[in-house]
Amino acid sequence: MDLPEPHPLTASVLSSFGPNSSPRAREILTGLIRYLHAFCRDVNLNTEELYIAIEALNRSGQMSNHERNETLLISDCLGVEALVDALTQRMLEKDNGTNSCILGPFYTADPPHYKNGDSIIQKYLGGEVTFFHGQILDADTNLPVAGASLNVWECAINGLYDQQDPDQPSGNMRGKFTSDSDGKYAFYCIKPVPYPVPYDGPAGDILKLMDRHPYRAGHIHFMVTSDSYHRLVTQVFPDDDTYLDSDSVYAVKSDLLLQFKPYTPDSPQGKGDVEANVQWEVNWDFKIKQRKV
Amino acid sequence: MDLPEPHPLTASVLSSFGPNSSPRAREILTGLIRYLHAFCRDVNLNTEELYIAIEALNRSGQMSNHERNETLLISDCLGVEALVDALTQRMLEKDNGTNSCILGPFYTADPPHYKNGDSIIQKYLGGEVTFFHGQILDADTNLPVAGASLNVWECAINGLYDQQDPDQPSGNMRGKFTSDSDGKYAFYCIKPVPYPVPYDGPAGDILKLMDRHPYRAGHIHFMVTSDSYHRLVTQVFPDDDTYLDSDSVYAVKSDLLLQFKPYTPDSPQGKGDVEANVQWEVNWDFKIKQRKV
Repeated sequence: MDLPEPHPLTASVLSSFGPNSSPRAREILTGLIRYLHAFCRDVNLNTEELYIAIEALNRSGQMSNHERNETLLISDCLGVEALVDALTQRMLEKDNGTNSCILGPFYTADPPHYKNGDSIIQKYLGGEVTFFHGQILDADTNLPVAGASLNVWECAINGLYDQQDPDQPSGNMRGKFTSDSDGKYAFYCIKPVPYPVPYDGPAGDILKLMDRHPYRAGHIHFMVTSDSYHRLVTQVFPDDDTYLDSDSVYAVKSDLLLQFKPYTPDSPQGKGDVEANVQWEVNWDFKIKQRKV
Repeated sequence: MDLPEPHPLTASVLSSFGPNSSPRAREILTGLIRYLHAFCRDVNLNTEELYIAIEALNRSGQMSNHERNETLLISDCLGVEALVDALTQRMLEKDNGTNSCILGPFYTADPPHYKNGDSIIQKYLGGEVTFFHGQILDADTNLPVAGASLNVWECAINGLYDQQDPDQPSGNMRGKFTSDSDGKYAFYCIKPVPYPVPYDGPAGDILKLMDRHPYRAGHIHFMVTSDSYHRLVTQVFPDDDTYLDSDSVYAVKSDLLLQFKPYTPDSPQGKGDVEANVQWEVNWDFKIKQRKV
């Protein structure tokens, strides 16, 4: 399918850049103008429809705050953040490392710091307690990376992250760990559950217009950082989740599915006493890519 | 130039529509997804850039209120409202009527009602007073349209519309007139002056990134309505304005330029006493198109 010849008006907009526009700004805005205009022509967008869209975007900004990023959620429901994540991953040439995944709107920069083997469950609201452990490895050499930082966050059993939920203490279900001299990490969490993204705003309106459900497949978020390595932002998904094929933000990737195995007392490093009810065990390694200098 | 084959993720998003999505919603959202994704791939948008854009859109929504529509202004600075106006005009087959123009963010639905020959200047802040008159005609028959409603609005000499300016009474520089039995209308206003669109927000950031000035060519807004006719939304521009070739929202059209002639005491219908200083006269007809039943 062809992009049409620029409309005379599009040509006029494209020719209006001044000489001091930076190359990258010019590249992005030129592309935005061309594709937005081609979209408007392709669907014959009319003024009434444009004003509805503008109003929805204004409402989206007005709903957004430190607990909720409605506009990012709109981009997620259109698959834009997932696509940009894939493009960024490819540009960084992290292909043989662990696959990345979207950051999502619930990341916080300063979670509680824990020792390996601690639990991120400050307040237990229910759920199947899981012993989650593994190694952080160099993607190319397969050697352990010691001293890497592992930031983990998930929602509680009620589908809410701590900042969304007055019943959870700040920092509940999130934490920061450091890999040991063997690159190993370990913590207790709950087996993640599906939850609906907030759908009382414009993102929800888009889901309804697309006739889709708002559920995310259950997942745990991770951010792995280490000096001289690319930052890895990813999510993992229980391989038996109901919404793997219809995740509302298109974040599921087949190589990020993980197997929850029944916990046994002789499982490595397991204490078996967190919440007195450990049911599952996951062994998962992260492979991170060195930055080229 | 080709739109690339859909990325596997794009294909996945496009295939996720449910069966109860309305045809028009599906058409628009399918187009939006395809063009937005193609744009991201074309410019290799990365996650950092996406998050900057999302943050700018959130800020835009938060700046918008009944006095300011920052998100509409962003669309204007990218030429989107002007393009959608042109598309809508074409779809309505109003080609031999007066050309339309963008509504802009300063329209208000209920301006003061005036008799022909009145002035829209409630409070005179300066400017060259103009006697503005003409006829409202049927675009196809050229016959006068009696009883048509003419809504007019312009900024004051300081570049501010009444709702932006605590020094202007509400309704200043705007009004509603009704064409007489000959289709004639007449009022006093000021010769419009260029003004900068607000550029302390994301729209201004885009203008800066494009290395462009924020000035609009001076203009007067009109909305003409009459039963059984298409609503006409337009703007007219003094043909000697400085910014005709670089209007910041791409609204200028050559057939909407108008000539300001020196006002003479024997000019038709002129009173010559409004603000005791009438300098200009404009004779301008609006041609409106009947709706097909």
